[in-house]
Amino acid sequence: MVEKRKPLAVKEAIERVLKYSVHGESEQVDLQQSYGRFLAVDIIADHPVPPFDRSPYDGFAIRSIDTKYASTDHPVDFEVIDEIGAGSVSEFTIGEMQAVRIMTGAQIPSGCDAVVMLELTKVFQKAGRDYMSLKRSFNKGDNISFKGEDTQYGNILVKKGAYISPGIIALLATFGYAKVAVVKKPQIGIIATGSELLDVDEPLVPGKIRNSNSYMIDAQARRSGAEPVYLGKLVDDLKKCYEAVKVALENVDFLITTGGVSVGDFDYLPEIYKRLGANVLFNKVAMRPGSVTTVAEVNGKLLFGLSGNPSACFVGFELFVRPIIRTFLNSERAHLQRVTAILEEDFLKPNPFTRFVRGRISLTAGKVVASPIGLDKSNVVTSLADANAFIVLPGGTRGYKTGDNIDVLLIDDQTGSEFSWAESFK
Amino acid sequence: MVEKRKPLAVKEAIERVLKYSVHGESEQVDLQQSYGRFLAVDIIADHPVPPFDRSPYDGFAIRSIDTKYASTDHPVDFEVIDEIGAGSVSEFTIGEMQAVRIMTGAQIPSGCDAVVMLELTKVFQKAGRDYMSLKRSFNKGDNISFKGEDTQYGNILVKKGAYISPGIIALLATFGYAKVAVVKKPQIGIIATGSELLDVDEPLVPGKIRNSNSYMIDAQARRSGAEPVYLGKLVDDLKKCYEAVKVALENVDFLITTGGVSVGDFDYLPEIYKRLGANVLFNKVAMRPGSVTTVAEVNGKLLFGLSGNPSACFVGFELFVRPIIRTFLNSERAHLQRVTAILEEDFLKPNPFTRFVRGRISLTAGKVVASPIGLDKSNVVTSLADANAFIVLPGGTRGYKTGDNIDVLLIDDQTGSEFSWAESFK
Repeated sequence: MVEKRKPLAVKEAIERVLKYSVHGESEQVDLQQSYGRFLAVDIIADHPVPPFDRSPYDGFAIRSIDTKYASTDHPVDFEVIDEIGAGSVSEFTIGEMQAVRIMTGAQIPSGCDAVVMLELTKVFQKAGRDYMSLKRSFNKGDNISFKGEDTQYGNILVKKGAYISPGIIALLATFGYAKVAVVKKPQIGIIATGSELLDVDEPLVPGKIRNSNSYMIDAQARRSGAEPVYLGKLVDDLKKCYEAVKVALENVDFLITTGGVSVGDFDYLPEIYKRLGANVLFNKVAMRPGSVTTVAEVNGKLLFGLSGNPSACFVGFELFVRPIIRTFLNSERAHLQRVTAILEEDFLKPNPFTRFVRGRISLTAGKVVASPIGLDKSNVVTSLADANAFIVLPGGTRGYKTGDNIDVLLIDDQTGSEFSWAESFK
Repeated sequence: MVEKRKPLAVKEAIERVLKYSVHGESEQVDLQQSYGRFLAVDIIADHPVPPFDRSPYDGFAIRSIDTKYASTDHPVDFEVIDEIGAGSVSEFTIGEMQAVRIMTGAQIPSGCDAVVMLELTKVFQKAGRDYMSLKRSFNKGDNISFKGEDTQYGNILVKKGAYISPGIIALLATFGYAKVAVVKKPQIGIIATGSELLDVDEPLVPGKIRNSNSYMIDAQARRSGAEPVYLGKLVDDLKKCYEAVKVALENVDFLITTGGVSVGDFDYLPEIYKRLGANVLFNKVAMRPGSVTTVAEVNGKLLFGLSGNPSACFVGFELFVRPIIRTFLNSERAHLQRVTAILEEDFLKPNPFTRFVRGRISLTAGKVVASPIGLDKSNVVTSLADANAFIVLPGGTRGYKTGDNIDVLLIDDQTGSEFSWAESFK
């Protein structure tokens, strides 16, 4: 008998999964190893930036008042009493008509309130002493980078959960973080099921295909910030599958299986969930591809049963597994970023269920445009290679035309989104 | 005396650098390690996908001609003569009014030309034999994924130089690439110069700042696909700097220095280039920030002299170093992607030189909008953490208003671009 399954709306399915989200622990890594990780703590300024008034240019530090009457016709001469490079501090306090030769980044000497760029001066010597002259007036504060003008002491610079970019690394270095507290990567176990699966290095034989989903998920997990743990490929044997899943669940943070979740006679996952005493959150979602996506929970640990079809598997990962990984990593924007785009091609099929069509968005003449890629069959592997977005066509709609506004989810983007986007889906 | 330098247009500066671009060698890595690397060879389909006609559903494989008169009023019965799972091949050739129970992914048995989904059938037994009945007609080819419908034998699936995404990994697995030929990462040496620089783990002292550029470049290099090699931090000592640069050049593919390229008394890089007998491609670029960016070449090897100011350093890397890294990695889109965006805030300063303003683009209501971030001073570190784009304001323009179309370069994007974008700059 075919089991009757009631499809759950995408939004509700995601919400059920999110109820079991957990936050990961933190670990210290070297600054150089922190690129692409997620901050475990807020980064707070423990000193102002700049830490002192400093010169943004090579030139001379002066008292602006001494330039008051300077002009092209009346150049004014200053005695140069010291020379300081970046990293040095002048011991002098300058007086009337005196100047200090100063390099980019050096601290403004005591008594000075402006910097004159080298190019605007003329240097000369007189009676064995150094002088410079200039031909225009300057105001108090001219060409000075003031202490704290960039960042004040105590500011939150970056919030925990942020994806560590090169710009954030520069900040971490500036504030002395030789070690950085990042969230430990969650370990994602991956098990592929199906007697039709060959290893990647096996030659093709009739009726069989190579296991591509495990490797694809491995890379999706890395992109999401997780550490994939490949646990092997299983033939359709209930006992072996059950044992493998049971053992795996104990050793990873989350477990993904691919295949075996449908209603076929060799789809053993439903029976495995039963034997594990798992709480099946749902086993059918009102979406294409990926309607058989199943998520279950055992003692608070999530078990994702993704479809064996590559595209359905891909979508299932991005919609359900990615937000769990990103929440683990403390991200407040755990979901794929949703943006509005303009459809570049007709998509006239009706959508009884919400459809996630592989597509490509491009930014053209100030607009976000999207077009579907290739065939939209769930077993089409090649179109996954080109896709950078899912075009979302909500259930109950009757097809879309060129020029229509549509929602798309960005696949390659690290920015992410809060969960607002699902509001528009059925 | 202050050396007079003639600023070179950004486009010409980049073109001069590209003349010295080289392509890297390839190396074999395990499929799981290939995510984020760049393909060294084209990937060609050595078999069609699907490799055989197969069923995309659980159901029954039949001869469509036998369903010709089936209807709700006249159900038609089929004898089920075999059952095959994915990975198995039926040994039978079916005859009139016969069917084979077939699982998702299994090969279509000989003689069958359509698949009926399980949900549309009723199964029963009669005289110890299995039967199923159905109530509608099917056409030849219904519910069959045909051999080669996704990809034909010999197709180029992905071109060399492609960034290996999870979708491409799925393809590589499907086609049996247990090992993947990727381009060796170029080794990018990084030397920071400046007596004002403290190590990240040193406490702040008057006049000094922590070395942030090395770590920032380290991460930028990783993002670009290179392997950074940090070679230390040097005080402003000509002899030591010269020795360090000379040795470094021999051990890396490209060398980056930060600081020391300006016209200050302690800016030793110009003298070092002289002693090395380097061919200085340019030492001033008509852009802000980063006007002092210098690139030199010694025996065909490039030496990038980036500014010591964090923002100028950041821009210099993305404009000049990134395309050299990406070209090394065989990418045909070695440059940052340029897109047109709509300015969200006035930027009224005139632009004597082409300006690269740190900004944030967002995709809002189908449009690409951009706004500058914070102050636009070249020493502002914190705004780098939030920037995801450079807003490009060409030299000679008089400021821009909200709603104006502007060019932006995407920093976080892996897609890249050919060199078309610079055409619009002065």
